[in-house]
Amino acid sequence: MDNPVEVLDKIVTLTNGRIGPSHLADEQEKGPMRITDVKVAEAPIGSRFSNAVIDFSRMTVSVIAVETDVVVAGERVVGYGFNSNGRYAQTGILTERVLPRLRDAASEVLVDPETGILDPVTARAVMMTNEKPGGHGDRAVAVGIVDMALWDAVAKATGRPLYQALHDRFNLVDKPAESVWVYAAGGYYYPDGTLGSLRDEIRSYLDLGYRDVKIKIGGASLASDLERIEGVLAILPDGCRLAVDANGRFDLPTALSYASALSAYDLLWYEEPCDPLDYLSHAVLAEEYPGRLATGENLFAVQEVRNLARHAGLRPHQDILQMDPSLSYGAAEYAEMLGCLCARGWQAARCCPHGGHLYNLAVAAAFGLGGCESYPRVFEPFGGFVDEQPIEDGRVRLANDLPGIGIEGKAALHDLVRRLFR
Amino acid sequence: MDNPVEVLDKIVTLTNGRIGPSHLADEQEKGPMRITDVKVAEAPIGSRFSNAVIDFSRMTVSVIAVETDVVVAGERVVGYGFNSNGRYAQTGILTERVLPRLRDAASEVLVDPETGILDPVTARAVMMTNEKPGGHGDRAVAVGIVDMALWDAVAKATGRPLYQALHDRFNLVDKPAESVWVYAAGGYYYPDGTLGSLRDEIRSYLDLGYRDVKIKIGGASLASDLERIEGVLAILPDGCRLAVDANGRFDLPTALSYASALSAYDLLWYEEPCDPLDYLSHAVLAEEYPGRLATGENLFAVQEVRNLARHAGLRPHQDILQMDPSLSYGAAEYAEMLGCLCARGWQAARCCPHGGHLYNLAVAAAFGLGGCESYPRVFEPFGGFVDEQPIEDGRVRLANDLPGIGIEGKAALHDLVRRLFR
Repeated sequence: MDNPVEVLDKIVTLTNGRIGPSHLADEQEKGPMRITDVKVAEAPIGSRFSNAVIDFSRMTVSVIAVETDVVVAGERVVGYGFNSNGRYAQTGILTERVLPRLRDAASEVLVDPETGILDPVTARAVMMTNEKPGGHGDRAVAVGIVDMALWDAVAKATGRPLYQALHDRFNLVDKPAESVWVYAAGGYYYPDGTLGSLRDEIRSYLDLGYRDVKIKIGGASLASDLERIEGVLAILPDGCRLAVDANGRFDLPTALSYASALSAYDLLWYEEPCDPLDYLSHAVLAEEYPGRLATGENLFAVQEVRNLARHAGLRPHQDILQMDPSLSYGAAEYAEMLGCLCARGWQAARCCPHGGHLYNLAVAAAFGLGGCESYPRVFEPFGGFVDEQPIEDGRVRLANDLPGIGIEGKAALHDLVRRLFR
Repeated sequence: MDNPVEVLDKIVTLTNGRIGPSHLADEQEKGPMRITDVKVAEAPIGSRFSNAVIDFSRMTVSVIAVETDVVVAGERVVGYGFNSNGRYAQTGILTERVLPRLRDAASEVLVDPETGILDPVTARAVMMTNEKPGGHGDRAVAVGIVDMALWDAVAKATGRPLYQALHDRFNLVDKPAESVWVYAAGGYYYPDGTLGSLRDEIRSYLDLGYRDVKIKIGGASLASDLERIEGVLAILPDGCRLAVDANGRFDLPTALSYASALSAYDLLWYEEPCDPLDYLSHAVLAEEYPGRLATGENLFAVQEVRNLARHAGLRPHQDILQMDPSLSYGAAEYAEMLGCLCARGWQAARCCPHGGHLYNLAVAAAFGLGGCESYPRVFEPFGGFVDEQPIEDGRVRLANDLPGIGIEGKAALHDLVRRLFR
């Protein structure tokens, strides 16, 4: 492994011992696909830097393994799920609310009646039984983690890459994309960072094949941030673009001051200027800032996205929405968000999820999204895409020969989940 | 205990072993008040009924004990906190995010520099370090639980009832209320419930001293709900009022149908007709329904309350807001909510928190709120007020001789927390 990851000594097993007779999917045996065990573990996120709001060094990642009775090519199908960076430790919600409902549901209820294969859309409804409306925060993350693992299991059980399985279930585009636009999100504030080290970092992203990059703002003075911006713009080749991200830090007057200063540059976008739920401030900014605004990584449910579409005054022809399916109840909720947006004049191409990992990449390909965030070399091994899949001209190709999310094509991540759940 | 409560076999201790020399507050010893240990436990909520949305039978309550080095009258001060019904199992958020930050903060940072006594307002800021904006759900509950325990400890350390400690810290009214209006929230759907049993239940609330009552709607057909309403109205004495609660279940057309039918009755209020975050539907209902609307128990942060005030079209002169301080980051956040509302023409008297327990009662008295929900005989022992404090003419008096929240004046709850943390 490139990044040695210390594994926390904490695994909770939910249904241990209930493994039934194997269900040989590749031999067409009858009976519904069954979940035989669900395990929950945690690993450190292992990144030592901060943005305008948070320090990542103590964060963990919740990882779950959904074991099934399906055997493909002699191996039992196990689906893995994990959360994106930023929200963590949903252990209690997983082990006491969400997963017991899945465990207690009859297998027949959880499968597509035609195929006998698990249906994550149904499973999500089961997991949300007895949950109150509103309060979409950590619960959305917990359900998103399970959703990821279920989709991984379903795709593996049916021998399809995840993007194909998602496409077949939701049918939102004619066919999945073969490659997805990605941009390198970096430019964090490091304790010993200089303009030189920032430029070196940006150059390293260009060397990796990225065309577009993003840096943080709002963790320093406006003057200092403008120096960072100009310093990066000066080294970007023609056709490469720079986005800036304030991580929801500004009040409206500060956001407007930045907007005024940022208008002087041809930026890719100005991200999360204000609190993600302050729709009115976004509406004011959309009147004042001529460039693209981006927000949404801290919206967790279709209700919040609908409010953004109704009240935030964003411009469907240019602004960017960054909801992260793995943090917000998973693929089915994300499909509902797209439905809500498209009914109001938005297109899927204006959506570009936060998260920077294989699951969101597959959602982007399957749902026709405009792109997907990427964090080169940080948040590893959960962040990033499959090994030996280079970024070419700012795009990453989907691996079409790996069933499931593709964790098995990412050696460090595959090794980690095997160590967590061995 | 009236309701035997099985104690779950799960206690996490956060700072065990770090108990320092006793700080004898009542003997004026120097040095800041210190947290010596924080323990987290869970207990079942022990109620077997449902409303329109959820079944409570499997819910738990997270309980924490904040142990301090203050000794009053020979006993070490311990503050207790627990969550209201409905959102539960925030264990991971407590033990891995919120509480470690409190543990790692220097005692000097957590206290009021003038008095050396813990300041829960500062503690809340410390607990929210490194938390991302948005996503106000279970995190708000976790912080609310700790906030409750810290206020209990602070009030006990200074020999004041909680309402007095809150009043002294926030100064929102001239003086705390001596009694608070409460209403009996019941009328749930029981599997074997009849109109007769519903009427018996309502009569029992009147016998307890309540004047106003609330029943659920939306878990049955409109016709059946109207029968329930008429059945209850027929037995209510003059001056007693009935509220109805749909628990956010309806879409707008259904909410409007109910609004039209409910307009025929003189109801106390029509509560949570729609999804709590669907501000636009509330605005439509406020145009169409002449009576009082009530909502807010599923809003968890000042940002969400501000959006309600901005976008939901509710009427400050008549509608009712039910945010629950113990579910939404605690007293300081609630004070901010009130500030946000009052700047928009609302008065504290229009607020009446969900929750039905001692902490919210104290907040209501300290902040001049219009009242407080009450759940006679259910959600015990966490629900309810101090023993032998009768409801008189629909009001409950605040116990002025019990330092802290008043848990020690509620035998079943006091017994439970002692068993949980012995």
